[in-house]
Amino acid sequence: MLLTKTQIEQHNDALLTQHQRNFEFISGNVAGIDAILKKLTDFQVAIPSWALGNGGTRFGRFGGRGEPATLEQKLEDVGLLHQFNRSSGAISLHIPWDIPKDAAALKQLAAQLDLKFDAMNSNTFQDQPGQAHSYKYGSLQHVDKAVRKQAIDHNIEVIKYGEELGSESLTIWLADGSCFPGQLNFRKAFNNTLESLGEIYDALPESWKVFVEYKAFEPNFYSTTVGDWGQSFLFASKLGEKAYTLVDLGHHLPNANIEQIVALLLNEKKLGGFHFNDSKYGDDDLTVGSIKPYQLFLIFKELVEGMDARGMDHTRDLGWMIDASHNVKDPLEDLLQSVEAIRIAYAQALLVDPAKLDAAQEANDVALAQEILQAAYRTDVRPILAEARLRAGAALDPIGLFRQLKVRDQLVKERGANTVATGL
Amino acid sequence: MLLTKTQIEQHNDALLTQHQRNFEFISGNVAGIDAILKKLTDFQVAIPSWALGNGGTRFGRFGGRGEPATLEQKLEDVGLLHQFNRSSGAISLHIPWDIPKDAAALKQLAAQLDLKFDAMNSNTFQDQPGQAHSYKYGSLQHVDKAVRKQAIDHNIEVIKYGEELGSESLTIWLADGSCFPGQLNFRKAFNNTLESLGEIYDALPESWKVFVEYKAFEPNFYSTTVGDWGQSFLFASKLGEKAYTLVDLGHHLPNANIEQIVALLLNEKKLGGFHFNDSKYGDDDLTVGSIKPYQLFLIFKELVEGMDARGMDHTRDLGWMIDASHNVKDPLEDLLQSVEAIRIAYAQALLVDPAKLDAAQEANDVALAQEILQAAYRTDVRPILAEARLRAGAALDPIGLFRQLKVRDQLVKERGANTVATGL
Amino acid sequence: MLLTKTQIEQHNDALLTQHQRNFEFISGNVAGIDAILKKLTDFQVAIPSWALGNGGTRFGRFGGRGEPATLEQKLEDVGLLHQFNRSSGAISLHIPWDIPKDAAALKQLAAQLDLKFDAMNSNTFQDQPGQAHSYKYGSLQHVDKAVRKQAIDHNIEVIKYGEELGSESLTIWLADGSCFPGQLNFRKAFNNTLESLGEIYDALPESWKVFVEYKAFEPNFYSTTVGDWGQSFLFASKLGEKAYTLVDLGHHLPNANIEQIVALLLNEKKLGGFHFNDSKYGDDDLTVGSIKPYQLFLIFKELVEGMDARGMDHTRDLGWMIDASHNVKDPLEDLLQSVEAIRIAYAQALLVDPAKLDAAQEANDVALAQEILQAAYRTDVRPILAEARLRAGAALDPIGLFRQLKVRDQLVKERGANTVATGL
Amino acid sequence: MLLTKTQIEQHNDALLTQHQRNFEFISGNVAGIDAILKKLTDFQVAIPSWALGNGGTRFGRFGGRGEPATLEQKLEDVGLLHQFNRSSGAISLHIPWDIPKDAAALKQLAAQLDLKFDAMNSNTFQDQPGQAHSYKYGSLQHVDKAVRKQAIDHNIEVIKYGEELGSESLTIWLADGSCFPGQLNFRKAFNNTLESLGEIYDALPESWKVFVEYKAFEPNFYSTTVGDWGQSFLFASKLGEKAYTLVDLGHHLPNANIEQIVALLLNEKKLGGFHFNDSKYGDDDLTVGSIKPYQLFLIFKELVEGMDARGMDHTRDLGWMIDASHNVKDPLEDLLQSVEAIRIAYAQALLVDPAKLDAAQEANDVALAQEILQAAYRTDVRPILAEARLRAGAALDPIGLFRQLKVRDQLVKERGANTVATGL
Repeated sequence: MLLTKTQIEQHNDALLTQHQRNFEFISGNVAGIDAILKKLTDFQVAIPSWALGNGGTRFGRFGGRGEPATLEQKLEDVGLLHQFNRSSGAISLHIPWDIPKDAAALKQLAAQLDLKFDAMNSNTFQDQPGQAHSYKYGSLQHVDKAVRKQAIDHNIEVIKYGEELGSESLTIWLADGSCFPGQLNFRKAFNNTLESLGEIYDALPESWKVFVEYKAFEPNFYSTTVGDWGQSFLFASKLGEKAYTLVDLGHHLPNANIEQIVALLLNEKKLGGFHFNDSKYGDDDLTVGSIKPYQLFLIFKELVEGMDARGMDHTRDLGWMIDASHNVKDPLEDLLQSVEAIRIAYAQALLVDPAKLDAAQEANDVALAQEILQAAYRTDVRPILAEARLRAGAALDPIGLFRQLKVRDQLVKERGANTVATGL
Repeated sequence: MLLTKTQIEQHNDALLTQHQRNFEFISGNVAGIDAILKKLTDFQVAIPSWALGNGGTRFGRFGGRGEPATLEQKLEDVGLLHQFNRSSGAISLHIPWDIPKDAAALKQLAAQLDLKFDAMNSNTFQDQPGQAHSYKYGSLQHVDKAVRKQAIDHNIEVIKYGEELGSESLTIWLADGSCFPGQLNFRKAFNNTLESLGEIYDALPESWKVFVEYKAFEPNFYSTTVGDWGQSFLFASKLGEKAYTLVDLGHHLPNANIEQIVALLLNEKKLGGFHFNDSKYGDDDLTVGSIKPYQLFLIFKELVEGMDARGMDHTRDLGWMIDASHNVKDPLEDLLQSVEAIRIAYAQALLVDPAKLDAAQEANDVALAQEILQAAYRTDVRPILAEARLRAGAALDPIGLFRQLKVRDQLVKERGANTVATGL
Repeated sequence: MLLTKTQIEQHNDALLTQHQRNFEFISGNVAGIDAILKKLTDFQVAIPSWALGNGGTRFGRFGGRGEPATLEQKLEDVGLLHQFNRSSGAISLHIPWDIPKDAAALKQLAAQLDLKFDAMNSNTFQDQPGQAHSYKYGSLQHVDKAVRKQAIDHNIEVIKYGEELGSESLTIWLADGSCFPGQLNFRKAFNNTLESLGEIYDALPESWKVFVEYKAFEPNFYSTTVGDWGQSFLFASKLGEKAYTLVDLGHHLPNANIEQIVALLLNEKKLGGFHFNDSKYGDDDLTVGSIKPYQLFLIFKELVEGMDARGMDHTRDLGWMIDASHNVKDPLEDLLQSVEAIRIAYAQALLVDPAKLDAAQEANDVALAQEILQAAYRTDVRPILAEARLRAGAALDPIGLFRQLKVRDQLVKERGANTVATGL
Repeated sequence: MLLTKTQIEQHNDALLTQHQRNFEFISGNVAGIDAILKKLTDFQVAIPSWALGNGGTRFGRFGGRGEPATLEQKLEDVGLLHQFNRSSGAISLHIPWDIPKDAAALKQLAAQLDLKFDAMNSNTFQDQPGQAHSYKYGSLQHVDKAVRKQAIDHNIEVIKYGEELGSESLTIWLADGSCFPGQLNFRKAFNNTLESLGEIYDALPESWKVFVEYKAFEPNFYSTTVGDWGQSFLFASKLGEKAYTLVDLGHHLPNANIEQIVALLLNEKKLGGFHFNDSKYGDDDLTVGSIKPYQLFLIFKELVEGMDARGMDHTRDLGWMIDASHNVKDPLEDLLQSVEAIRIAYAQALLVDPAKLDAAQEANDVALAQEILQAAYRTDVRPILAEARLRAGAALDPIGLFRQLKVRDQLVKERGANTVATGL
């Protein structure tokens, strides 16, 4: 299913007067609105293929309706999202859930939908039917070289699929770790993992990056071998210039100051990208911005300031991806909410005047520094986002239009109610 | 030091055009703006006497300048704050730091400053010079009845001081607990505390309430005898109708859902009041709204909805107080920021349409329920707050005026640089 | 598969000399060893039917071998365990995973294996095929009375199955809650749940208890409707004398003082029973005692002291059950380790001299109180447990014998390698 | 006050029969007892000068009695402790609390008491009277080079004092950080700190080490500039070979896997030393082993295994120090308990057979690996520690003798009741 230009225009026309009033107001209050609009237009968030169906927990899963059952349908879902917001022009695939059978056809479909292929994701946290060795006790860390070899080969195969599609990065989330004290020799596990990552690194094409994701816990409940940013940084440093740390917001111990981690990784030139989501307790994989939106803003404030300080391109030099699970919402609505929350945080961060903030910091004027941040955060930037969408041909109110057009019902008609997307 | 009417008016005049543009815009978008303005005008937050000076940590304290050295000066500081925002028309005293020597004169001063005396606070977590028994091992929980008696008598004395001043409630924050396994018999400590609270309860004047505050940890580091809302609720239930639970935002274990606790306490008719602050790690006592403003909004959403459901008066039926510590900011600026953050959350909560939210909830429309909350939260309500201040004769930009008038320098001139407020 | 008397005796004979040396030593150091042995012999821990197979996480499951595929086989597994340690003489069933088809035959089998039927467990956190209403948005809390009715009826059906088998209690673990702010009206959810529980309570047979289990989070990631002991206690209090709180060690926020909760629930006569496991991060469901064995001891110290203070029977007046998941171990070995860890903590708690501890507490002698607890905890009580097993006809070294007899291989021979137990 | 040989001998004689029975038993069960005794004898834990008086919290301090009022008395206290256990033969000084006036005399006194001077500690978290610049907004991170210079000079002065006394290491615990979002530019703070540490590093004598301590939070409540092991490791790596990370057990976010951090730091040759204490909530500074003794054992297991793997000397190649606060106990009794807990964990770690554990790990035999660790941990090693003390001329029961001799009363007689040790 795709939207017609008319559908979008009719929707926008009905909202235009109110929008213009809103946008005119904010334009009068914010300096440099055009530069902000430009940045918002360029800023695209990748959608992971596994976020297009309903997720679950270890206690079970409540299915959704009309989920995409094929890789082509997943691309179509992301293409549809992109029509609504012109902000999600990339898809991130997961192997073996998304093995491309006809890469050329897929690339053509993606081009039609104006989508790029973002980072490829490997999977050594589950056993696949017919697999020679089990990952029950780890993959890249495994005590048995044969198991490590299998996991290395899988990652190299993922790179190969990515090359065919035009992706330029590999994300390795390693579930490896242990559930009980004594299970693992930490040093051996670290060194085995380093050796394995090295072999994958050697197989990277020239232009590629590899992202080493860290996670504090789950599915291993005593130790995780790439457990925090320090460990990921160690791996990335030892591997070389093409290796970076990837930050997933939900992968930290309680109360961690993620924005500081981001700033330091930028300082050390080792921040590679982001997995956006939100959480209250653990890796809850909730809709971005649904629990701690101010933290999200603070992270973006560090990103904007740190990238600008190094002359980085906001849209190309870091990988931006959502990684959430949708247990009780329509996945597409959830993703629209997530993209919106990310862009709100980004827009608010762009409102911070770096010179003023710097002056307050240099004067140790703590109250003023807080005022500067909060003034940006408290600004209602939604009309700016809407204007950026309007100019790009997307919907003023994406969720409103999604519901107005009964998109999910359409998808159910096309696909049937009980289709299930691969993934968690 | 007090502001003159002219000082405020000149300040407001300079900002009026911009304010009017802002307020006109938001008035056009928000229904029932006058009712909201009325509620904001009525809503007053009490300032604790100990928040008027700089706080510290166990590692030391970096002093401020021009702190109030007498109880009269503390009232003057709060009176001054109230001139800036017309939203902090009450002071909360702490005995023995604020023993009134001439209650009649104090009441007169308070009346001049348009201040009420909010909840009285007792102190059995420190030993005072000449005290017969030490609280090293607890007060109301103590194994020795003589120590308990001393702590009970102190609380009754605090009530007496409060009666003289026209306060109508007593807040008991009990630091009692233990630092090591085995130190305490939990059941005896609970039962001793209950007995002690009962004797204090019996001494309450007819119109008074007593608030039983809970705290997860600190200054005791293994157990706290009133450690969570469940324990406070147990005490309050057993004591009787005049006993309530008091919620301090910083007194919870990591990740606690405070808004749910608030809703349940309202449901059980046992919520008594609030200590506002913010925190990232423990009882950090940071400026309200400086870390988790969305959580603050969610709490106010429960308060508004829960109080309205029971026909409670927003301004009188719960106690609203700040309890923060100002280690690196000017205390008065910090308090202006805290009051503003509280009122922003309150105003945003008032924007939630209860009927729409209820309909979404009844339909299990999770995405829509989130949209409704976030639409309110993302609204920039600062012009509404400013308008409420303008109408009440306060400053459009309190911190701006505070700095413009060099208030702290004035206070230093009056009091000297090295005055130290009593407190932590 | 069952053990023969000879198998056990041969195993014990080979270890007897060393055991006697160990037991003689500890007997000389510990007063009242016979009373302790008696208590250990009487103390039985129930095994949940779902712990007999391998568990998994939301990221997948690595299967085990020779899992019990029928309810009869589950009983046989527990019977086998009980032969090894004579300490796990009860099984706890879960409906619909363990619907008894022939209750009389099952009771006969259980009698042969010397097993009792412990608490029955209902399941309203998953949808079953053909179910009229979904629990996606809750069960006993649901906004729709028809869904609540379905969940109530299910619980009543579970009671009926339990009656047929001779069980005398129902455990209700309610996953109900919400994933996002706004999804739920907390007060309505609480009140709906109370009403639903009330209908179940009314269906309880005279001699039955109902346990209301609480959990901080998961599978809902924003709020849980029975989220902490305070909420469970509220429900249990309102329901009546047959309703109790059940404590699962993994169901708390970080750093919670569980032993204090236990002491207070005993004080209020509302502690009903336990789900034992261990955890480092969340509800990790690890082997009991594998992460925080000292906390387990402190909990048992409160249990022994609190039950003795009220004249309760250690073996009958509370429900003792394991609730763990075995992702990387043989489930039966894991359960043997868990039962051993529970009994070690219990035995150590029995070594605490209550009079001495009380004297230290009354004198505020914190260092001495700690010495008393640690002296008990540091004592190597394993020979006492072994002696209790020896006298009861069980194995001196259960895991040693389990491996010596290649039990799992036997079970695979009987059942096939790829059988899968129902459960999580 | 010092103990006489006779006092110790009489005490030991009275306990000898029981001890011999205990030691004989354990000797029969443990292989290589003499090697263990040798290691225990060599293993010494440094006592920080500030742990000899009572500590407090930000809410106040309950004083002790007979605290050491001079540096000489502090040495005497540690000398006395060392007589009791022959395991605390070093003292760690803090400048400016312990500025040596006559280094030669102090060295002589230390030699008489058989004490070494362990790591020196600097203090840039408090302002001293007459100090030119305040550390309110940081020290080594400060935006003002003059403040940084003052803090650098202070550290260099501390090195100088250390050289005079024969210390060979400097511990830098940096409280620097921020209390509010926006207060700090994280990158500038990091880079300033690096530059400052570099200047201190350049002033290190040839044989010295510098330890960079990290801490998650407190006294700063939003960010800490050396906030986790990753940041400390970054600094230590950039500084050079003489710079190491120091691990304080209480300085982590909730649920952190400290033993894994230790293993990785050893793997990277950057572990420098330890501050021992225990905690339940934050940096509670409780008696070592009083809350999580199994975690302490797991840490020592990594230390022993990791040091042995690199051929390190257990006693000399890492710095071992207690860093605790004694709010409700006699500081000397508390320290005796802490040293005992450290040595118990060390002895238990020595009982782990590395070859057996390695074999279990290589076979992914998780249950067996756990059995091996728990068998060591559950062993009652107290008789081994007692034997080591007996052979070294110390007391079989240090706390027992401490109380028998009424040591605190003696100290009060010598010093007066109300002396106060410098420190927190």
